Amino acid sequence: MTTPQRPGPITLLTDFGTADYFVSSMKGVILSRCADVTIVDITHEIAPQDIHSAAFTLLAAHKAFPAGTIRLAVVDPGVGSVRRPILASCGNQLFVGPDNGIFSYIFEREPPSQVIHIQSEEYFLHPVSASFHGRDIFAAVAAALANAVPLIDFGKEITDWVQLKPLAPVVRGDGSIQARIIHIDRFGNCITNLTREDLPKGVSDRGLRLSINGTEIDAMRRFFADDSDSSNDLFAIWGSAGFLEVSVQNASAANALNAKAGDLVWVSGRSEYRL
Amino acid sequence: MTTPQRPGPITLLTDFGTADYFVSSMKGVILSRCADVTIVDITHEIAPQDIHSAAFTLLAAHKAFPAGTIRLAVVDPGVGSVRRPILASCGNQLFVGPDNGIFSYIFEREPPSQVIHIQSEEYFLHPVSASFHGRDIFAAVAAALANAVPLIDFGKEITDWVQLKPLAPVVRGDGSIQARIIHIDRFGNCITNLTREDLPKGVSDRGLRLSINGTEIDAMRRFFADDSDSSNDLFAIWGSAGFLEVSVQNASAANALNAKAGDLVWVSGRSEYRL
Amino acid sequence: MTTPQRPGPITLLTDFGTADYFVSSMKGVILSRCADVTIVDITHEIAPQDIHSAAFTLLAAHKAFPAGTIRLAVVDPGVGSVRRPILASCGNQLFVGPDNGIFSYIFEREPPSQVIHIQSEEYFLHPVSASFHGRDIFAAVAAALANAVPLIDFGKEITDWVQLKPLAPVVRGDGSIQARIIHIDRFGNCITNLTREDLPKGVSDRGLRLSINGTEIDAMRRFFADDSDSSNDLFAIWGSAGFLEVSVQNASAANALNAKAGDLVWVSGRSEYRL
Repeated sequence: MTTPQRPGPITLLTDFGTADYFVSSMKGVILSRCADVTIVDITHEIAPQDIHSAAFTLLAAHKAFPAGTIRLAVVDPGVGSVRRPILASCGNQLFVGPDNGIFSYIFEREPPSQVIHIQSEEYFLHPVSASFHGRDIFAAVAAALANAVPLIDFGKEITDWVQLKPLAPVVRGDGSIQARIIHIDRFGNCITNLTREDLPKGVSDRGLRLSINGTEIDAMRRFFADDSDSSNDLFAIWGSAGFLEVSVQNASAANALNAKAGDLVWVSGRSEYRL
Repeated sequence: MTTPQRPGPITLLTDFGTADYFVSSMKGVILSRCADVTIVDITHEIAPQDIHSAAFTLLAAHKAFPAGTIRLAVVDPGVGSVRRPILASCGNQLFVGPDNGIFSYIFEREPPSQVIHIQSEEYFLHPVSASFHGRDIFAAVAAALANAVPLIDFGKEITDWVQLKPLAPVVRGDGSIQARIIHIDRFGNCITNLTREDLPKGVSDRGLRLSINGTEIDAMRRFFADDSDSSNDLFAIWGSAGFLEVSVQNASAANALNAKAGDLVWVSGRSEYRL
Repeated sequence: MTTPQRPGPITLLTDFGTADYFVSSMKGVILSRCADVTIVDITHEIAPQDIHSAAFTLLAAHKAFPAGTIRLAVVDPGVGSVRRPILASCGNQLFVGPDNGIFSYIFEREPPSQVIHIQSEEYFLHPVSASFHGRDIFAAVAAALANAVPLIDFGKEITDWVQLKPLAPVVRGDGSIQARIIHIDRFGNCITNLTREDLPKGVSDRGLRLSINGTEIDAMRRFFADDSDSSNDLFAIWGSAGFLEVSVQNASAANALNAKAGDLVWVSGRSEYRL
């Protein structure tokens, strides 16, 4: 990675909410050490300690950010335990957070070129509190990265970082796919873990059939607003994060399906020749 | 408009909430293309697809922003349909969003000098997704505007943009006014669509009487904290967005009136001579 | 305070929420007058008119910010009444807001070197509305401060600013401490007003016993994740804002204790010799 003229931006993702002093304290530490960096909130509304949801949201926002972006993420049930603080270089971005798999879904697609176990306390905010490493370790390290401190100065390279169970769905011998819902968004769209790349060879990305919680979904759309179907029907659509989603035009698909994150989605395709 | 030394700021208003990857993805696209622009959130808590509420909030925050501000707004029930993406120059600010009336209340007060149907795909983020034009079209175009791309480069000038029903209230032959509640704020204040400019000639702006859902309000105040009345009484006050509001000093007027956006407000005035 | 090369940052804390036009209007006024200042949200989710919660949150985020930070805070039940708008220099930061005690907990630890009753209307946004001094007075004055206008230009120095009841707990003759819960955070941690500095001489900061709403808490931890106890047990911990907190590892201590802000906390210590 070439060092950008203007450092950052630094993106923040946490489960801290925005009502407390937590997020702003992290920003204060960053700006104390790197006054002209741009800070962007990804979200602070991850459900407390939900690492999978954090990992998905980081992945979904990933490609929008420029080379040199520093991605700080703190969903950290193990704060104060033996879990390691890490930083990583992956693609053309940098990553800082706890070693609990939070960057897994990004690293699953493109292996990081370097992962460092952060140990150099000279970059920390002292005294380091027992419960708020987001401020005292991770924000301080992100600011040092924005100030172009070389990665290796922060600690030792490791290769055994924690990876979550792969995001990719299971493709069965008969060509059927066992996917799952990985996120439900504000509008009630159910985002699955299925991408076009996961489809078995020869299966069209336009003729998929889904089954979720006993409901069959046989319609696919290219756009949300599509006058060819009733607006109350469930349909599948390739979503803006690259995953297959289940939607209803002006209502919540999650409510219609009584669905939640983790629910199984059975997908079967038609061969392209039958279209 | 003279091009500002420092581009922007770019303001964002959406109905996307802040829990998903939507808003930060828009910011990532903007910063990827214009690294030093300041981005300001107006709000992302517009009720899903509520164009009227979006139009009001854009208007209410309008005058606070400097010349050269780029106002990006995405409340877009028609994403993926035939509704046009537009940009406009109005007053000394620029506007980018779907052609569904979202900028109507601003354009109603000052007609835009130029409105463009956005068609130049070279400024878009590719591939353009079916469901997230906020990121792939509108944020990308806003960044190009911040980079001083001339308006006409984005497409063809149009004159038939969508306008919502006018915000202004109806003044009857007998001088009475049929207004409506256009917004209820966090504190329960009920904001009507009546401005001082809407009052019939000779009617004082200090002696108005209101009727909402069967409740008569005969008190007006200049300030919230006013010891001349009981603090539990409903009163009318000229609010900070320029509209007549109904309030209770330390409680919710909306609860007291069982009021919601859209409810009718009957207003009658005293002539100035009787004061 | 030496004038920083780059002004600010300006931090904002209000009870305005983020759904309305209030916060963004303040930011618009600031950016209209000082285009390159960085604005950081502390929070806008203070409960309406809760000055004590605002004062605590300002204090908790205080030390994270750099010299030259301008701290704008607007929780203002008395807007439009006789309460004074003030600004202050304290430590190496500046403070702008209503004179209602909102900065008390910071000033209690380090007396301000100068407090000014803001009277110079030339720095205000005109016309000044009856209900939104956050935009028309406080944001406008903060921008002028960022532009290096000297403090004394804004009005007259005062010494009788409003202080809330001290944050410090009461230490009894028998060495026991009557503390109280001052904040409950997103995770249900109950933050008390007790700091290490408040402990009577000779009392260890590691052997405290607490009683809250009839529940005795005899365990203290250095870290949240501590395998020596069951994860369902209540424990006390020195929190990241410097105060003693009561927590449960993976649940809400506030729910377990049926606790709310203001509840009494009885604390007794062991002498260091007995450890």
